[in-house]
Parts: sequence; structure tokens; C-alpha cells
Amino acid sequence: MTMPTATQPTFPPLMTGMAVTGDPMETAILHAIKGCDAGLICYRTAADRVGAALVFAPEVPLEDAMAMLPLCGVGFQNALGALAPPEVAVHLEWSGGIRVNGAACGAFSACASTRDPGAVPDWLVIGFDVPLWPQEDAPGLTPDRTALHAEGCAEVDPGLLVEAWARHTLNWIARWEAQGHAPLHAEWRGLAHGVGEDAEQNGLRGVFLGVDERFGMLLRDTETTHLIPLTMLLGTTP
Amino acid sequence: MTMPTATQPTFPPLMTGMAVTGDPMETAILHAIKGCDAGLICYRTAADRVGAALVFAPEVPLEDAMAMLPLCGVGFQNALGALAPPEVAVHLEWSGGIRVNGAACGAFSACASTRDPGAVPDWLVIGFDVPLWPQEDAPGLTPDRTALHAEGCAEVDPGLLVEAWARHTLNWIARWEAQGHAPLHAEWRGLAHGVGEDAEQNGLRGVFLGVDERFGMLLRDTETTHLIPLTMLLGTTP
Repeated sequence: MTMPTATQPTFPPLMTGMAVTGDPMETAILHAIKGCDAGLICYRTAADRVGAALVFAPEVPLEDAMAMLPLCGVGFQNALGALAPPEVAVHLEWSGGIRVNGAACGAFSACASTRDPGAVPDWLVIGFDVPLWPQEDAPGLTPDRTALHAEGCAEVDPGLLVEAWARHTLNWIARWEAQGHAPLHAEWRGLAHGVGEDAEQNGLRGVFLGVDERFGMLLRDTETTHLIPLTMLLGTTP
Repeated sequence: MTMPTATQPTFPPLMTGMAVTGDPMETAILHAIKGCDAGLICYRTAADRVGAALVFAPEVPLEDAMAMLPLCGVGFQNALGALAPPEVAVHLEWSGGIRVNGAACGAFSACASTRDPGAVPDWLVIGFDVPLWPQEDAPGLTPDRTALHAEGCAEVDPGLLVEAWARHTLNWIARWEAQGHAPLHAEWRGLAHGVGEDAEQNGLRGVFLGVDERFGMLLRDTETTHLIPLTMLLGTTP
């Protein structure tokens, strides 16, 4: 087993990188609670996994700011897509999961200072955690789970992945600011995993029809179409 | 004289707005010295002037990070160009000055934690200050100085100008990260004031030929061509 070498990432001038040894998401949340400004990126490039979390200071209600979750996912797909061999397929689950070549390979999560969809949150943290190596001794036992190095991405430098994620995410934020939701919607739709298929989310089952304007999940069962807002995915503060 | 009304600006999720009553540049520098993160925008929309200053956390040497000065200028031109009547022409002096319809109308300035071109600065602050109304009682006495409201921009909302500046600047930062200097160079060249004309800068006189890769000024006198780096424009810390 070759130990991956990670390049020290550099970040755009509106972001501040912080290498952490613990969970990047938890560390970023703690800094956000303490009142750090937007743009802090906590990241960890460990031997077996890579993760990063970005602190936002939204100026819109949480229900709109949650678009940063699919936005960060699109940034990740763009970054990994550029660094991985061209045959590696990266898709995004509505609920934050990352799919590489169809199998689950880590996930994005979100946490905010409030769960009230109509309130402007003091902070919003979006982060990802992706395994580099399979965590089970017998990976064949869990064929729907994978890791980057098992999918032909052994050459992907975790530090450069974090860096590219930050840059692509910045680029999407700028587009989102300038052009609104539409370009992000179009890009996300082309990367979404499981649209048109059966899905289960928040105790509801049905066909995953797509998303509404705020990226809420449209889930049609035999009786009606449910709208599950992205705020349902918010994690609890550590 | 109508008092201008200023809309409360909102900022992209990587920026944090702070309305200030004093000089925005000085306030931003003081916050940067105290260790605030990148993305803080101090702004002031007073009755007679509008200004804003953005804190950067560069991860490249100062000589490269100084590109944020022309970048912020281009963002300002884009913002004012979109908000002002189409006949209003906005151009940028190499040294930070803003020209509206050919006359001086405020300026950008820059300040950093170091003046060493090869050092990565802890912080870099870029800000602008633009008069809304002529500051002299007899504006005709200084025909090469003007103010926004004297140039047909009385309808420009100062708050929205600050907001649009932040968004266009963010957009240029994202392009600069993704595509390097070239697009910014091309845009800046089209907006530069005085290229090909006689100029005086830092005690040197000559013809302003243009800029080098790092936006240094190329000034040709009878004997040689001088290169004046952007770091020569750095102000002193208050």
C-alpha cells in the first residue's frame, strides 16, 4: 500500500486554509460558532481519507442559502472530474452522498446556526469527507461502497483535490451571485444520482422526480408528490 | 440638493459586510491587523461620498497579490458601468485613480502587512473612495476633478454600487483563480487611462507604454524603459 502524498493546498484570496488533525466539519463548525468570518476552510489530508469544510456567512434566509450544499457538490465533481482519469464517473446524491463509478464514496454534510428555513443564519458550514482506501477489510462484502483509490484515482493528490474543490466552489458562488440559480440547476441536474428512480428520504418513499427551485427533493408516491426541503438534511451542531 | 438614499447592500456568502461611520479603508486595515479573516468588506455610504474596502488573505507573494488592485478596479468599472447611464465612461488610472467621463473621480488604494514584494502578506486591503458631490464650492475651478452626481450618476444608489462592486470583484477573483492573469489583463487594458500618453509616476517621467505580467507600469523615457511595480503604490498603515 503506497502512502498518498498530499500537496499543501493554496486557496483563493477570499478563503483562509486551516490544516486540522481532527474532523474538518466539526472544527469548522466550532470556529463558526466562535464567530470566525466566512471563507475559512478547515481541511484534513489523512492517509486513508480527505475532507474539507467551508464556512459561509449567508445574507439570505437558510432555505435559500442551502443551495450552497449542491453548489459545493458540483464544485467537488468539477474538481475530481478534472483530476481523475476521464473514465471515472462522479455523481451527486440529493442528500449529499458522492457516487464514484456508481458506488457510494463519501458524502457532503451541512450544518447551520439555525434550522429555521426563514431565518438568515449567522453561519453555514458545508463539508465533505471522502475515503481514499476502503475502510472494511473485505471490500467485496459492501459492493455499493467504494473509495477513491479503488476507483482508479490513486494518482489524485488529496491536497490538490481540496484546492481544486475550493476554486471550483468559488467559481460557482460567483456564477450563483451573478446569474442566480439557473446555471447551478442545469449543472447539478446533469450530475444528479437516481433521478427517475425509486428513492427513500426522511421516511418517505416514491419516485425521485427532480428538484424544485430551491433544490428541494420532489418525491412522488402513489397519492401525491412530496417536497422535501434541503434544510431537512442539516446536521446537528457538535 | 437631493440627499441620496442608499440601499443596505447584501454580499456574496464568502464576504462579510460591515457598515462603518469612519474611513472604510482605515477600519478594514485595523480589523485586518487584529486578525480578521479574508472577505470582510467595510463600507460607508455617506451623503457626499461612498467607499468600501475588502480584506484579502493572499497565499501568493505580495508582488503577485497586488493584482487585486487592478482587479478591484475592474470590478468597480463593471459595477458602475452597469448601474450608470450608458453614456457615462469609467476608466482606471494605473495608480488607482478612477476617471469618470475623463475627469478624476475618487481612487482605489492598497495597503498590506508587508512591503516586501517576495513575502506572502498576512493581509492585503484594497478599497475605494468616490465623491458623490463635488467637494469644492466652485467646481469649475478644478475641471479635471468631478463627482458621480455631476456626471449623470445621481440615480446610482451608493449601497447598490458597493454591492455590485463586491459581486463583480468576486467574479473576477474566481476568473483569476481559474484562468490566471490573461482575462484580467485583457479587461484592464480596455479600461486603462492614459496608455500611450506622457505620464509621471514615482518621480519618473515618460510615455506610459502599458503593463507587464504583474501589472507593473512600463514607462519609457528618452534613455530606457522603467518598470514600476504595483507594490510602489502601497499606502502606509494608519
